[in-house]
Amino acid sequence: MFLPAPHVARVKADAAERAALELARLLGDSVVSCEASALEGVSRDESETQGVLPDIVVFARNAGDLAETLRVAAKHDVPVTPRAGGSGRAGGAIPLAGGIVLCTEALDQIKDIDARNRVAVVEPGLMTRDLHRAVEALGLFYPPDPNSLEWCRIGGNVATNAGGPRAYKYGVTRNYVLGTEVQLMGGEVLRTGRRTKKGVTGYDATALLVGSEGTLGVFSELTLALVAKPPLVATVLALFSDDAAALGAVVHLQAAGLTPRCIEYLDAVTCNAVRAKGVALDLRAQALLLMDLDGAALDAELERHGEVLLGCAGIVDVQVAQDAARRDALWNARRALSPTTRALAKFKISEDVVVPITEMAHLVSESHVIAERNQIRSLVYGHAGDGNLHVNFLFDDTSEMPRVKQALLELMQCTLGLGGTLTGEHGIGTTKLAYLHLEQDAGLRALQLRLKAAFDPRGLLNPGKAIVATHAC
Amino acid sequence: MFLPAPHVARVKADAAERAALELARLLGDSVVSCEASALEGVSRDESETQGVLPDIVVFARNAGDLAETLRVAAKHDVPVTPRAGGSGRAGGAIPLAGGIVLCTEALDQIKDIDARNRVAVVEPGLMTRDLHRAVEALGLFYPPDPNSLEWCRIGGNVATNAGGPRAYKYGVTRNYVLGTEVQLMGGEVLRTGRRTKKGVTGYDATALLVGSEGTLGVFSELTLALVAKPPLVATVLALFSDDAAALGAVVHLQAAGLTPRCIEYLDAVTCNAVRAKGVALDLRAQALLLMDLDGAALDAELERHGEVLLGCAGIVDVQVAQDAARRDALWNARRALSPTTRALAKFKISEDVVVPITEMAHLVSESHVIAERNQIRSLVYGHAGDGNLHVNFLFDDTSEMPRVKQALLELMQCTLGLGGTLTGEHGIGTTKLAYLHLEQDAGLRALQLRLKAAFDPRGLLNPGKAIVATHAC
Repeated sequence: MFLPAPHVARVKADAAERAALELARLLGDSVVSCEASALEGVSRDESETQGVLPDIVVFARNAGDLAETLRVAAKHDVPVTPRAGGSGRAGGAIPLAGGIVLCTEALDQIKDIDARNRVAVVEPGLMTRDLHRAVEALGLFYPPDPNSLEWCRIGGNVATNAGGPRAYKYGVTRNYVLGTEVQLMGGEVLRTGRRTKKGVTGYDATALLVGSEGTLGVFSELTLALVAKPPLVATVLALFSDDAAALGAVVHLQAAGLTPRCIEYLDAVTCNAVRAKGVALDLRAQALLLMDLDGAALDAELERHGEVLLGCAGIVDVQVAQDAARRDALWNARRALSPTTRALAKFKISEDVVVPITEMAHLVSESHVIAERNQIRSLVYGHAGDGNLHVNFLFDDTSEMPRVKQALLELMQCTLGLGGTLTGEHGIGTTKLAYLHLEQDAGLRALQLRLKAAFDPRGLLNPGKAIVATHAC
Repeated sequence: MFLPAPHVARVKADAAERAALELARLLGDSVVSCEASALEGVSRDESETQGVLPDIVVFARNAGDLAETLRVAAKHDVPVTPRAGGSGRAGGAIPLAGGIVLCTEALDQIKDIDARNRVAVVEPGLMTRDLHRAVEALGLFYPPDPNSLEWCRIGGNVATNAGGPRAYKYGVTRNYVLGTEVQLMGGEVLRTGRRTKKGVTGYDATALLVGSEGTLGVFSELTLALVAKPPLVATVLALFSDDAAALGAVVHLQAAGLTPRCIEYLDAVTCNAVRAKGVALDLRAQALLLMDLDGAALDAELERHGEVLLGCAGIVDVQVAQDAARRDALWNARRALSPTTRALAKFKISEDVVVPITEMAHLVSESHVIAERNQIRSLVYGHAGDGNLHVNFLFDDTSEMPRVKQALLELMQCTLGLGGTLTGEHGIGTTKLAYLHLEQDAGLRALQLRLKAAFDPRGLLNPGKAIVATHAC
């Protein structure tokens, strides 16, 4: 809780008070709260960003509550920060201007699963894991699997266009959102998109909403495409002598035309974190790739993966996780990497950069050079199949922040110099706004402000996020 | 050439003349033409829509010519209709307001194929088949395969978010566009998106441009994602006693978790058209499914498809096309369906509706009822795996147009009533604008106009298309 957020003017106290009174009258005291404990509970996410306390929190029960809140907020010129699970890592759900935090957690229903047409219609507060369980029980599959899937909510997944390991084979959240019901600032409700797999009627407003980080509208319903659940899954663990070998193997696997459902990379530090979780790993391994394969028949695929991996320079060992216990141990350790590595220092900043896969080895070695030059520690893991690496900087004292900031800037410059992008799946939120101009030129940034104005002309919805450091409010 | 286009006010003659003079001076007479033969050559597409002759055609040689044209057009308040291959089926490339037709055909270069990172950077005038050939020579694959792939251009594919048979397994054009360089009305150039597979920096302006039918900007460069070329392809032909049986089999195939790369459906009339092309088909077959499977190993997959198909009601025969000659004959006949069936009557209107796959049989039977009620003929074929059916109405005299229009309206109403959408891959263009309000409510249509204004506030780019019948111009 120390990274300063962009400066956004705080809402006027009398406006917030009028909005609070009107909302409490309309929605009731059980829905609208101004109590300190409630306000504190919605003022953070899983980034290190310090926001401000909001004035009001609305625990919406249904789409009507969302619309009413957005109507009253617009009437009184009060900013609104939408919030689903609060599991974001870029500060996207943190209130910066005070005003209202609009919680969608209670909208957690599955409205429909049409198994024969492979469509689910859900509310935004549904936990991602609950969607997974419900559709898998019917032989279907919702591929996006952000690491936080046990507690994140589908509305936040859509707002950030969440990814996860399985994106390598199956793509990201955007690929599965067919349509939305979305509440606009002011209380208007729109339906975008469709229920069918194909469709090109009008502009793709749905795609524009996906990944817009709650700055354009608040989802009240999401129509999602599903696929068939793969009958079989197998896990392959490939151990390497060094980073370059592991990351080079990713290029070889892809060149061989292989498509496991994920290719996760761990560097030496994170290999040790996995060992500390009680997972035995050959001590010669200084980097590893963890891969899942899925499909109707895997024997031939496993053999081809083994052949390619054993032909890679620096390979130490290739193992197929035959039993569920070993598989679960590996994946639980992988999923726990964020909290595990967080314990390695008092402070940790996890970045989410993407580079072409051929440039990953360069990015990893350069990130260590950057860390050393700025006298902080670093570690890297991530979704290597997609070139999406979580570069983490570790440090122990806030006095180091100027050096950390310098390291972050150098990391972003390096990423973009390698043909990459600032964020693969976490979003810009507030934490990466300072670098936005390094990737997007003034013309594109200005266009995005005009697109924002098409939805929210007064800039009241989630101000200070995603596209610009300060909104009018 | 008889369907009336929406009314759009024609550009003032003096404004067009000033623009023509300035463009000729800047770009030269070999690039800018006002000759009747040139103007006629760019006033039609493959729909039945009657546009108007433009005043000027610009045969752009490069991005600079595009920018200069859009700058001069804006200066003189002259509308611009962008044009790639002119193979569209919805009137999207037809000039409605006169002014300038801006041709991108000469921008046909492949700028880069980065095989290891599976990215191609191409110009908009590149023929889709040439992209296919170039990447397949490197063991890569660009899945979208609109039926017109031998003559359509990638810029038009992106503008319409083109599909094709392979969309069933691989998705549509949108899924492969990573980034664009786009020229805006007025001469500004923007770069949107990225070169990496993942990325969530800022709004997804790229996705908004895909399928916007040339109303937001003119592409000068496209960055496309590629996948590995599947090593093997096999073709399965399933013959059925009737439509409902064939379309029911699609539901069974999907329920069994099978994912061929395409599932094409032909009704009785189109089966006969295939027979007329010299392809032998069991005479008991009154409907068929043509499927391609691809992958590294197909024997087990073929067997599973055979099992499921032979278990379907109304199955007449299942054949695996073992030799290339039979495969090519089947696919050539499928690809030729549009011209072949066009010969069945003086006039043919091909629609492009989508319904949930469980509703296809209902849509097909209802489309025949609608045709009969309005005393015209009908036939149906299409991408059944995606629920995307090309319902064709045939007639011989323009005096029948009131009945044809009534049938079209009823078809659209039926489609939407079944949970479908007006267009799966052709676009709204001009031909479906009259039905847009049936699918999209006033709020969404108004939002789309605001999005349009964020790119082109004076409505000069491709007026009268995609989102609204008349623009200011």
